[in-house]
Amino acid sequence: MDKKNDVVLCGTFIHATNTESAVILNDKCIGVKDGKIEFIDDISLVEKNLKQHNMEGTKIIKMTERQFMIPGFIDTHIHAPQYPNAGKGLDKGLLEWLETYTFPVESKFKDLKYAASAYRKAVNRVLCNGTTTACYYATIDTDATLLLCDIINDLGQRALVGKVNMNINSPDYYVEASVEESINETRRYIEAVKSRKYTTIQPIITPRFAIACCKTLMKKLGDLAEEHNLPIQTHLCETKDEVSFVNKLFPDYDSYADVYDKTGLLTEKTVLAHCVHLTQPEIDLIKNRKCGVSHCPNSNLSLRSGLLDARNLLQQDIKMGLGTDVSGGYHPSILDAMRVTLHVSNTQSLLKQNGYTPLNMKEAFSLATLGGAKVLSMEDVLGNFEVGKYFDALLIDPCSEHSVLDIFDDDIANDCFEKFMFTGDDRNISRIFIGGKEVHNPVDVFSVQSTCTINGAGL
Amino acid sequence: MDKKNDVVLCGTFIHATNTESAVILNDKCIGVKDGKIEFIDDISLVEKNLKQHNMEGTKIIKMTERQFMIPGFIDTHIHAPQYPNAGKGLDKGLLEWLETYTFPVESKFKDLKYAASAYRKAVNRVLCNGTTTACYYATIDTDATLLLCDIINDLGQRALVGKVNMNINSPDYYVEASVEESINETRRYIEAVKSRKYTTIQPIITPRFAIACCKTLMKKLGDLAEEHNLPIQTHLCETKDEVSFVNKLFPDYDSYADVYDKTGLLTEKTVLAHCVHLTQPEIDLIKNRKCGVSHCPNSNLSLRSGLLDARNLLQQDIKMGLGTDVSGGYHPSILDAMRVTLHVSNTQSLLKQNGYTPLNMKEAFSLATLGGAKVLSMEDVLGNFEVGKYFDALLIDPCSEHSVLDIFDDDIANDCFEKFMFTGDDRNISRIFIGGKEVHNPVDVFSVQSTCTINGAGL
Ligand SMILES: [Zn+2]
Ligand SMILES: [Zn+2]
Repeated sequence: MDKKNDVVLCGTFIHATNTESAVILNDKCIGVKDGKIEFIDDISLVEKNLKQHNMEGTKIIKMTERQFMIPGFIDTHIHAPQYPNAGKGLDKGLLEWLETYTFPVESKFKDLKYAASAYRKAVNRVLCNGTTTACYYATIDTDATLLLCDIINDLGQRALVGKVNMNINSPDYYVEASVEESINETRRYIEAVKSRKYTTIQPIITPRFAIACCKTLMKKLGDLAEEHNLPIQTHLCETKDEVSFVNKLFPDYDSYADVYDKTGLLTEKTVLAHCVHLTQPEIDLIKNRKCGVSHCPNSNLSLRSGLLDARNLLQQDIKMGLGTDVSGGYHPSILDAMRVTLHVSNTQSLLKQNGYTPLNMKEAFSLATLGGAKVLSMEDVLGNFEVGKYFDALLIDPCSEHSVLDIFDDDIANDCFEKFMFTGDDRNISRIFIGGKEVHNPVDVFSVQSTCTINGAGL
Repeated sequence: MDKKNDVVLCGTFIHATNTESAVILNDKCIGVKDGKIEFIDDISLVEKNLKQHNMEGTKIIKMTERQFMIPGFIDTHIHAPQYPNAGKGLDKGLLEWLETYTFPVESKFKDLKYAASAYRKAVNRVLCNGTTTACYYATIDTDATLLLCDIINDLGQRALVGKVNMNINSPDYYVEASVEESINETRRYIEAVKSRKYTTIQPIITPRFAIACCKTLMKKLGDLAEEHNLPIQTHLCETKDEVSFVNKLFPDYDSYADVYDKTGLLTEKTVLAHCVHLTQPEIDLIKNRKCGVSHCPNSNLSLRSGLLDARNLLQQDIKMGLGTDVSGGYHPSILDAMRVTLHVSNTQSLLKQNGYTPLNMKEAFSLATLGGAKVLSMEDVLGNFEVGKYFDALLIDPCSEHSVLDIFDDDIANDCFEKFMFTGDDRNISRIFIGGKEVHNPVDVFSVQSTCTINGAGL
């Protein structure tokens, strides 16, 4: 194993655990060996640990007083080929939006030259915003999806990447010709990904949603997932119109979720996006099947899909992470997803009135990190700072050059954390580590010594 | 008049008018003389206009293809001394939040050294975010409020600035001793502002809200506003608890709004923040008095105050602008206020279901510019690009260095506008003009030629 990425970080770490949403660990050191966390201990014991773990001479990074590290953000639902539309076309509901804006842009990605440029912009931007692991939908095109994998690999991000399956109720210019073609292409995709031996990328089975896939296709995709032990992602109960349409298409099934269940798509490695309009039997079903939910609040508000009651699902022990759902959601940052999560949960508390406890900022942080890892069935290797897990982490500097935050003398560590969560942005993400490897360092980018000033009024 | 700020801008301009929320004017030129718009015409007629308006030799700024100019944002409700708390302490409702976080931070500003530093950070940040006109609450301290005016003047922003009045139901450490003291200090404040002859700053009468001011104080403040022909700002119907408390304090009045009306505080120059829980008689009252409403959606969601039905008030021809309400709202940018306005309005459409038309992005833009000017009774001089108005404007560059946006080849002018509105930030605000004078140019700040790259993957 290459040792050049081994590193020891010293300072403040903030992460979620299974019992606490956000724990602030002051004066700690974390040793990273072969991409994974080798030790976590008090800063005073760093020398002892280096000796004990055969890591003498390893590079040490000391954080400054205001800096802290958090686990990298996990985006559990994002459409890479919709990134060119981020911030555009939010004047329609889901089904009309798909026809008018989304299928046209996705269909462009069969042009591999366009795909190369657009996917690179998308992944770069997602990564700049601190998303160290993303669960991507690509398009129906296998070669373009493989190109996306190459780009993600090149930029060093961790990802699940799905070639999209859709063979019915789709426009002529953007549909797979048959079940056979769809399955063959999916097999070709899976094998190609395996042969490329990426270290951070896995394929994920990706039937778009029950409207766009026939029963046979869904069934065969379920079989394929089982055969290769692969995760699955799809959409569920995003809007009321969509639910009605599915109920009409599948009159013999108990519910929308039941369609996925009967076709073998609900496994403990299934990521279900949205889940805004679940019935209680559907909640029970996805709980029994141990599926995870990707909560995409910006998308749900921007497309007027509905208000997820996240508290309700969490109280019923449903696994939950956050998703940007670009470009239904307009923002490629999980910081935005956390903020809108809180606004939606506060809205629920206004509607439900007495006794409803909205999510707090720390819970949103937990969903964005450890929650996401659980939804992607990667909690054994991702999501927080535990020995043996990959070191996927962000160095947050609330006082970075060009920072959009203002920190005051009496702001303590928790204040800096809150200010970053509510008002910070990519400018405060000073370093990004994925599997111990530093992939991004804006210090190289923002190398001027000045800060935002007006008429010479330096801060 | 100093001619050195005279300038001609050529390119695309986007603004709201009384009939359209956002008009895109391509290939235009705007001539600015003595701080005001002297002419607007087709770009081909620039020479003719320069001659006709005696402006030959004036500096010409040509926008690039993707750039465009919009009127400066108007923040109709912001508490400058709460800026140190922006992004902190959002775990309580209004009244408890005031006691726990807000009164303590505001009381610090009697220390003029603290005030000088904190106010400079606040105004600088608000201005960087494109707010060319702000309607500020300061604190009860007259000298600190005058210091705020000096800083605003120094930085070149346009503003209404209010010394806060509060003499009851306030903590011992942060309250005015008597009606007499409160009025004398307000008189001293008004006279000091007048004597300083600022060109862009006016005082505004600022009773905090009916809970914190006795009837006599409110009445005398109403008289003072009339005597000096001054605007007035206060809070109205922000939360249900606050409304109940006011009804208990003033049992002889018809409503919360009626308390302000009977004390002479409802004039056509009154700015009423929030107005979430108005009754129909209150809506009728503020409409008859021609008051303006400052809609502060981030604050309303973050403090769980309620969901304003902006469409309802607009349909009843109530004047409306947007406010950040820092630090009840955590974000000092009107871009954020526009985005949350749309999420709240979309939420209303989800709750009201059939026939409800949520606000669209262009309407939010209109509220943030021309709407704000109307609320501040400055629509004769501010809010859009009309001959005779002040040239308060932002040069937007969707492709600025370090931009957080990605523009694609097929993005037309309207796409660039939408992308800026939904996903842009201060990095896309390349130049800021207030009264024709350029106050801020991040080009001086971000002078590196690189852009955000990962592992050398330039965009
Ligand atoms: Zn989606
Ligand atoms: Zn306020």
